[in-house]
Amino acid sequence: MSTDISLKVLSESLGGKVLVRLRNGRVLRGVLQGYDQHMNLILEQAEELNDENSVSRQLGVIVVRGDSIIMVSPTIKEKK
Amino acid sequence: MSTDISLKVLSESLGGKVLVRLRNGRVLRGVLQGYDQHMNLILEQAEELNDENSVSRQLGVIVVRGDSIIMVSPTIKEKK
Amino acid sequence: MSTDISLKVLSESLGGKVLVRLRNGRVLRGVLQGYDQHMNLILEQAEELNDENSVSRQLGVIVVRGDSIIMVSPTIKEKK
Amino acid sequence: MSTDISLKVLSESLGGKVLVRLRNGRVLRGVLQGYDQHMNLILEQAEELNDENSVSRQLGVIVVRGDSIIMVSPTIKEKK
Amino acid sequence: MSTDISLKVLSESLGGKVLVRLRNGRVLRGVLQGYDQHMNLILEQAEELNDENSVSRQLGVIVVRGDSIIMVSPTIKEKK
Amino acid sequence: MSTDISLKVLSESLGGKVLVRLRNGRVLRGVLQGYDQHMNLILEQAEELNDENSVSRQLGVIVVRGDSIIMVSPTIKEKK
Amino acid sequence: MSTDISLKVLSESLGGKVLVRLRNGRVLRGVLQGYDQHMNLILEQAEELNDENSVSRQLGVIVVRGDSIIMVSPTIKEKK
Repeated sequence: MSTDISLKVLSESLGGKVLVRLRNGRVLRGVLQGYDQHMNLILEQAEELNDENSVSRQLGVIVVRGDSIIMVSPTIKEKK
Repeated sequence: MSTDISLKVLSESLGGKVLVRLRNGRVLRGVLQGYDQHMNLILEQAEELNDENSVSRQLGVIVVRGDSIIMVSPTIKEKK
Repeated sequence: MSTDISLKVLSESLGGKVLVRLRNGRVLRGVLQGYDQHMNLILEQAEELNDENSVSRQLGVIVVRGDSIIMVSPTIKEKK
Repeated sequence: MSTDISLKVLSESLGGKVLVRLRNGRVLRGVLQGYDQHMNLILEQAEELNDENSVSRQLGVIVVRGDSIIMVSPTIKEKK
Repeated sequence: MSTDISLKVLSESLGGKVLVRLRNGRVLRGVLQGYDQHMNLILEQAEELNDENSVSRQLGVIVVRGDSIIMVSPTIKEKK
Repeated sequence: MSTDISLKVLSESLGGKVLVRLRNGRVLRGVLQGYDQHMNLILEQAEELNDENSVSRQLGVIVVRGDSIIMVSPTIKEKK
Repeated sequence: MSTDISLKVLSESLGGKVLVRLRNGRVLRGVLQGYDQHMNLILEQAEELNDENSVSRQLGVIVVRGDSIIMVSPTIKEKK
């Protein structure tokens, strides 16, 4: 109802691990250090995951553009 | 006629299960906890469904970007 | 000439069946219950049609994002 | 030079047949009944054409979203 | 440097033949009759060219949406 | 830091050759004659390059839409 | 929380090497010389990397359009 609802969820996730699914099909995981109103995200200890959810690449600190993002999962509960 | 018509439907769906179809072909299901005027959605107990409408993945809490969404179905009535 | 011409057609279609063609190639049919200036649509008794124009899926009430829509046909006159 | 040049051409085409090419490769033909500044078009007696420019489908009245359109041809002079 | 630089080139091309390359890979040629600040173009005697730069289709007068355009070549100097 | 940083680089490149990579995979080369704040570019003596960086087509003067551009290289230093 | 968070990370990266992943799948590396609020980047000594993270092409100075970018990694820590 509020314009801030998605930012509120991100705010509560600061300092915690998040899972980010991108439009190009890739999945990132990292510690959320910041975000802005475009849903641009700053992740630390970022990793790219492969289809089996294991780490395929260490990315360090990254800035992810919000318009590349499909969804953000503040808590990681992955089953397959 | 009103600019609020789609938000009104979402408002009435708060706390209930919704089905979300994404541009990338994926289908999500979850309890709608919030939304904003961009149609960004907060889903709890979110699940990704496969083509047979069975759950393929547990996602927990997710923020879904509105511009990734094709349609939202506030009530789930799926036949195939 | 007016900025309201497409909304006017939608207004006259309220309560009637409309056919909606989406960017992803899918075709929806339902009773138009509402719309806004982004051409977001609320459909009731929504159905997804297959290539032969027979119903492949019941969707119930749906919110369709305007930017997913290619065209809306307020009256259904389909031949093939 | 003017911001109204494309709308002026559409204005002169009101009541006449136009050909509309869409981003998805489809071609529509119909009588132009209205348009707005987004180039959303209202077509009556709309038809979808196949590659040989013969009618593959009758669509009746349609609202075509401007952002789905590549070009509009106010007068129909098609050779192949 | 100026915001009008691309419009200035189009202005100088009014009444002359231009070549227009579209996002969908197609190439159009026609006499530039008008344009606006969105780079929407009005072409007369418009033609669609095939890969060998010969005419594959006569289009007459067309309105081309600026957001479908990759580039406009005000003077035609094509070699291959 | 400044909003003008990319325009400043383009400004310094006026009159010199630039390489332009487009979203559709094509590469253009030409003398930069102008640009605007959308990164629309005016190139003279424009050429399209093939994969081996040799000229495949002479384009003369062209207006390139900024939203078709991935990157602009003000100085040409190509190795392969 | 701030609108400046992604720009702040870029600011701290000025003069250092960054890795840039583009929507078209390509990966660039270069020294960050500037950026603006659209995340347009100026890179010096820019290089395009292939899938094995070795240099496939020297690009010199480049302006990268922000809307072509998926993510920017201010520090380079690549494993594979």
